[in-house]
Amino acid sequence: MALKALFLNCTLKKSPETSNTAAFITQAEKIFAELDVQTETVRVVDHDVKFGNSSDEGEGDQWPAILQKVKDSDIMIIATPIWRGDRSAVAKLVAERFDGIWDEADEETGRYPTFNKVGGVMVDGNEDGAKKAISSICFDLSEHGFTVPVNAFSYYVGKAGPGPAYIEAKGDRHYFTNRNLYNMVYNMAHLAKVLKENPYQTNVNELNKKAKKISDTQE
Amino acid sequence: MALKALFLNCTLKKSPETSNTAAFITQAEKIFAELDVQTETVRVVDHDVKFGNSSDEGEGDQWPAILQKVKDSDIMIIATPIWRGDRSAVAKLVAERFDGIWDEADEETGRYPTFNKVGGVMVDGNEDGAKKAISSICFDLSEHGFTVPVNAFSYYVGKAGPGPAYIEAKGDRHYFTNRNLYNMVYNMAHLAKVLKENPYQTNVNELNKKAKKISDTQE
Amino acid sequence: MALKALFLNCTLKKSPETSNTAAFITQAEKIFAELDVQTETVRVVDHDVKFGNSSDEGEGDQWPAILQKVKDSDIMIIATPIWRGDRSAVAKLVAERFDGIWDEADEETGRYPTFNKVGGVMVDGNEDGAKKAISSICFDLSEHGFTVPVNAFSYYVGKAGPGPAYIEAKGDRHYFTNRNLYNMVYNMAHLAKVLKENPYQTNVNELNKKAKKISDTQE
Amino acid sequence: MALKALFLNCTLKKSPETSNTAAFITQAEKIFAELDVQTETVRVVDHDVKFGNSSDEGEGDQWPAILQKVKDSDIMIIATPIWRGDRSAVAKLVAERFDGIWDEADEETGRYPTFNKVGGVMVDGNEDGAKKAISSICFDLSEHGFTVPVNAFSYYVGKAGPGPAYIEAKGDRHYFTNRNLYNMVYNMAHLAKVLKENPYQTNVNELNKKAKKISDTQE
Repeated sequence: MALKALFLNCTLKKSPETSNTAAFITQAEKIFAELDVQTETVRVVDHDVKFGNSSDEGEGDQWPAILQKVKDSDIMIIATPIWRGDRSAVAKLVAERFDGIWDEADEETGRYPTFNKVGGVMVDGNEDGAKKAISSICFDLSEHGFTVPVNAFSYYVGKAGPGPAYIEAKGDRHYFTNRNLYNMVYNMAHLAKVLKENPYQTNVNELNKKAKKISDTQE
Repeated sequence: MALKALFLNCTLKKSPETSNTAAFITQAEKIFAELDVQTETVRVVDHDVKFGNSSDEGEGDQWPAILQKVKDSDIMIIATPIWRGDRSAVAKLVAERFDGIWDEADEETGRYPTFNKVGGVMVDGNEDGAKKAISSICFDLSEHGFTVPVNAFSYYVGKAGPGPAYIEAKGDRHYFTNRNLYNMVYNMAHLAKVLKENPYQTNVNELNKKAKKISDTQE
Repeated sequence: MALKALFLNCTLKKSPETSNTAAFITQAEKIFAELDVQTETVRVVDHDVKFGNSSDEGEGDQWPAILQKVKDSDIMIIATPIWRGDRSAVAKLVAERFDGIWDEADEETGRYPTFNKVGGVMVDGNEDGAKKAISSICFDLSEHGFTVPVNAFSYYVGKAGPGPAYIEAKGDRHYFTNRNLYNMVYNMAHLAKVLKENPYQTNVNELNKKAKKISDTQE
Repeated sequence: MALKALFLNCTLKKSPETSNTAAFITQAEKIFAELDVQTETVRVVDHDVKFGNSSDEGEGDQWPAILQKVKDSDIMIIATPIWRGDRSAVAKLVAERFDGIWDEADEETGRYPTFNKVGGVMVDGNEDGAKKAISSICFDLSEHGFTVPVNAFSYYVGKAGPGPAYIEAKGDRHYFTNRNLYNMVYNMAHLAKVLKENPYQTNVNELNKKAKKISDTQE
């Protein structure tokens, strides 16, 4: 069965405003297509995603529908523009909402629905900030149940200061960015397939019991 | 064949000074032993590792011997104390030296010697800074050829301000830290085994050629 | 004339939900009162602050009213809870909105309305992340026109893992946190007074002209 | 009396190797000269600075001599190249050594020798990482007793990926970098003068006593 990759576009701009991050995602989709991986993108800010730390923040919250798409995918990529030298506030909001995944652990195994999925990061900006954003997101992905492959990211940034962003700067013709994109996509697809066939056997509940036995604190 | 895990202890203190990070590593080794994973620790500061960005910085540099141990392992864990709310200067030095791995890519496939190895992080401090350290190190691991499993880390920190560190604070009896340690170890061992049996097939050289074709810049 | 300090509470929780950050701010207000500094707090999430990078994002945007309060103050403190080991998404949103200040520079001097104001940071969480948050916010403050005094921050965090936050943990009785709070408040008040009497004379426009003269790029 | 500015060049490369950071510092020195501020640079890696967290790590440690230069200056600028998207290991080492300043507090006032000095940051690299470095260093400066002025930094970075660094990229002709440099220098000089004439009156010891009174914990 074909693999499925989901992009969460964390631009600050609602549709139909032009999003550089959307253009960058399009480039990644073309490469996934070479490998017959299906792709879908959610532009988060077009939905009413509430601030919070659970999987459902109540009336009107549209995060649950987005989270369902994550659960239905094998690969998830957080794609964010750079603001203030870091991921966008929307990307941070998304990260915070993923904390809810811990409450959705399987009763028997303690594994979250994200186990055996592969995570990656794409960052674009007119300048400096990509690696800070990637670092934070890699940590989030690992804690939220994703596995992070070799070279799990690609980014485009220009020179110090104001200047053209991905589209105007022809980021889609920038070798370093494309090289990382190719490697990211191929590595993600490989790892997703491998994990699908060889899923984690970790019984989180059992391990937590072992940890309790050797601990004084119990939380 | 048994898996092998290597810890790089990035304490600032030379042997035989007491290292909290060493005590934390000992705890992890016990858990790896449950899974018959062999372990070894290098206390980096006991060796003359030069500042630099290559795999060999010349006369007297002892990094090459440490790097050889990494190549001989299936699992690598960067273990660092917290200073200034971040990984230690020694851990940063180690990260910088790993940039040399890019020059050791296989001629045909372009894959570095670290491909198919699994990476993780352990952080201890008397207070605040673990997640910043973990974030940066997760990014480094991925860029340097390692795969980062689910929950690829464990950490101990105390309350805000000066206070007891891992040993004195009985971090080895702190449930949250032990829970993460158990999950980290089991997840790493699973992923290392799976990658050994299903290694990345990525031909980096071929992908880079594809990237060149669609790019104007060529570096 | 009395100095005025403004707190921006960047909790994720709308009133009337209990906010640990609000309790922490109350502690700071008591100390400012000792120095006859007037204080006011805005709980950002109670207002409809749009995502964006300008001082006014159009219809319904309530950031302009908050920004006006900043302009009317001598001291501003960003107070944020920790989520994902970093400042909250709301605090990031606030940082992004401050980029609009660059478009409000004085026509003649090029100085923004924030020049000669003093900035600081307060962070509270149940665990790890304070220093990462403080670091990013200190950079933002400096770039957005504020001056950052000695020890411009205070924070409360507990041990690694889930646990009580500021209120339940009695952060208001934690010496390290109170000590930093006292020093932060006294240093801020001193610097605010000094800058009021000895404002920056920097003519940004003139300096930018000098910079243009020695540069090839012009943006 | 003339102000004095000290640069700590945190390059990884020993003299006489070419240092891009040194070239960047030269540009800043020219601007300080316009304001009759004396300048001096220490290339840290040329000295035997031990890993550690005190002001004197014993036999052969050359940090004490560097620290004395800091004490003799009104302005200090940490200048660092980017490696791994962050400040260099040498810059991290320097930050860790500054923790020793807390043990040098004035017996009566509790103020460290750095009080009333102004701190700033310069970062150069071939690509991404400047703002992460600046953020961490701004936090360090504030905690170590320095005051951080408006726009307390300048940086040069090129496009994503390998590429020319400051010298080869003609960073000294890059408007954005020069603009920030001019503003940094003028703001630092103003604030240093103002703080010299209006030093902090904070009695840290007295404030700490006040904090103890309202606290249960005593450390």
